[in-house]
Amino acid sequence: MLQNADHYPTRTDDKRETFDRHEPVIHCEGEEREYGPLGVSQLDQFERDGFLWLEGFFPQERIEPFFEELDAMARDPEIRDRDEVIMDADKTEIRSVFAMHELSEAFDRMTRDPRLLGMAQQILGGDVYIHQSRINSKAGFSGGGFNWHSDFETWHSEDGMPKMRAISASIMLTDNNAFNGPLMLIPGSHNRFVPCVGKTPDNNWLQSLKSQEIGVPDQESIAELANKRGIEAPTGRAGSLLLFDSNTLHASNANLSPWPRANLFFVYNSVENRLADPFSGTNPRPEYLGARQRNVALTPNH
Amino acid sequence: MLQNADHYPTRTDDKRETFDRHEPVIHCEGEEREYGPLGVSQLDQFERDGFLWLEGFFPQERIEPFFEELDAMARDPEIRDRDEVIMDADKTEIRSVFAMHELSEAFDRMTRDPRLLGMAQQILGGDVYIHQSRINSKAGFSGGGFNWHSDFETWHSEDGMPKMRAISASIMLTDNNAFNGPLMLIPGSHNRFVPCVGKTPDNNWLQSLKSQEIGVPDQESIAELANKRGIEAPTGRAGSLLLFDSNTLHASNANLSPWPRANLFFVYNSVENRLADPFSGTNPRPEYLGARQRNVALTPNH
Repeated sequence: MLQNADHYPTRTDDKRETFDRHEPVIHCEGEEREYGPLGVSQLDQFERDGFLWLEGFFPQERIEPFFEELDAMARDPEIRDRDEVIMDADKTEIRSVFAMHELSEAFDRMTRDPRLLGMAQQILGGDVYIHQSRINSKAGFSGGGFNWHSDFETWHSEDGMPKMRAISASIMLTDNNAFNGPLMLIPGSHNRFVPCVGKTPDNNWLQSLKSQEIGVPDQESIAELANKRGIEAPTGRAGSLLLFDSNTLHASNANLSPWPRANLFFVYNSVENRLADPFSGTNPRPEYLGARQRNVALTPNH
Repeated sequence: MLQNADHYPTRTDDKRETFDRHEPVIHCEGEEREYGPLGVSQLDQFERDGFLWLEGFFPQERIEPFFEELDAMARDPEIRDRDEVIMDADKTEIRSVFAMHELSEAFDRMTRDPRLLGMAQQILGGDVYIHQSRINSKAGFSGGGFNWHSDFETWHSEDGMPKMRAISASIMLTDNNAFNGPLMLIPGSHNRFVPCVGKTPDNNWLQSLKSQEIGVPDQESIAELANKRGIEAPTGRAGSLLLFDSNTLHASNANLSPWPRANLFFVYNSVENRLADPFSGTNPRPEYLGARQRNVALTPNH
C-alpha cells in the first residue's frame, strides 16, 4: 500500500542525517491562500517560522470557564481515575487531560470555532479532524518541564501519521510569562526532519507522557537548528493563541514561579493524512492519544 | 557577647512569620551616597529592588580569558579533585568552583577592580572583604536549576554572618538569555526576612551545594513576595554585571538551550560584619565557603 511507505524513517539503531521535509508547510495553493481567516503575511510568517502567535485571540471571559472546568475535573474522583487523565508525580494535581473535546461539550464546541477551524483548514488545505486534544497544566512551584521534540516524530512512528500535514492550536488558559514554563520553539526547525535513535518499546506512551526518552532528537541536531535562528517563547495573556506546525521542535522548562500555567491543545490533521499502522511497528496508541475511529471532518459551530 | 545575639532566627521546628530586615540596604549615609562609582539613581534602584543590572560593565575581551581558564581547570585532574570544585552528577562538567580568587590570580585581581570594589564599598558603607567567590556553570542541555533562596539565610545560619551587610557581584562570563537558565530575582524581597523551617544537619553544605533542601522558604511566603512586584531575570551579553543584596530571593531554571551559561560571583561583606559562630549551632563551613581567617579589607588594584 502506498500509504504505508515510510518517508520519515526514525527510531533506528544508528544515527541518521537530518533531511528536508517532503510536504509544504502551507497546503493551500495560489489564490486559496487568501480564502480564510489568516492574512497573507500571517501565512508567510507561519510558513517561515513554523508557528504563529495571536495575542488575545479569545477574550478572557471566554477562557475562564474552561479553567474552572479543569479545576472541577481535578476534584472529581471519577474523572481523575480515567486513563485520559495524567496526574503529576504526587497525584494531587492534573498534569494532562487528553481527549478534552470528548469529556467536555464546551471544549468540543471550541474545536469547531469558525475562526479557529478556518485557520486550520486554510493552513492544511481542506477538511480536518481532531487527531488529539489535551490540556497541559503546570502548578505553581511544581510543574515539570518537557524536553525538545517534534510532535510529528511521535505521531508518525507511534500513531502512523503518514505526512506532515497537521498543526497544533494551543490556547492559553492562564497568562503565560517567562517564568511559569512557557512553550519554547525553534523557529525554522519545522523544515528539517531529525531522525531519532532507539527502538520504540511497547506501550512507550505510558512513559513518554511523563518524560520523553525515546523520540528525543540528538543534541547536535538541536544545537544546529537553534544556532541558525535562536529560540523563541511567545508569552501573553490568557486567551492568546499559538498555532504551530506538527514538526516544529519545542520544549518547556519547569515552573519555578508561584503562578500556574495551563494551556489547551487541539491537534488538527488533514482528512487526507489519516492514520496508517504505526511506522515503528508497535501497536497503535489508545484512541484518546491518536484518533483512528473518530476522524470525521469537522464542520464549523456557527 | 552582643555579636552573637541572633536577630534573624531561622531553621526552627515551627513556621514563623516573615519580618522586615533590621539593617538598611545602602549602608553609606547622607553625602557619602555621592562618593563612589554608582550614581544616586542607581543606588536608589538597588535600594528599592535589591539588585542592579549593569549591561556590558566589563568589555567582552576582559571576560573571555576567564572562561578559557575555567575550561583549563575542568581538564586539570588535580584541580578537579579539589574540594572547592563541585562537578555535576555525571562528573564530566564543572558545576561550581569556590574560592576562585584563591585558585586564580586573575580572579583575585578582579575582586579588587577599582570600580567593582568601589561599588561594594559605597553600598556597604566602608571597607569590605571577600566572604565567598565562585563560578556557577551550566552546560548546554544539561545544567540544572536552583530553587528560591536568600543567600543571607544560609550565611547567617551556617556561617554566622550577623547582619545583612553583604552583596553579591555576579559577572556574566557568557551571554545570559531567557533560555540558558538566567538568575531570576524577586524585586523588593530583600526587605523581608523569611525564616525557614527545619533543623540544619551537620555538613549540610555537602548536600545543599547540589540541591538545597534546608533553608528553602515556604511557598506561601515566596508567592506573597512575587505577587507584589513580580519576578525579573536580567539578561544580556558576557561582561554584564549584576549586583544583588544578600537577602534578595533568587532562583534559576534548568538550561534547556544548547548554549552554556557561566557566571562569576564575588560576595563582598563589610569588615564590620565579620563571621561569628554559625547561628544554627552547626560547625562552621569550610573557609572556601565562608571566609573566617582570610577576611582582610581589600584595597583597589590600581
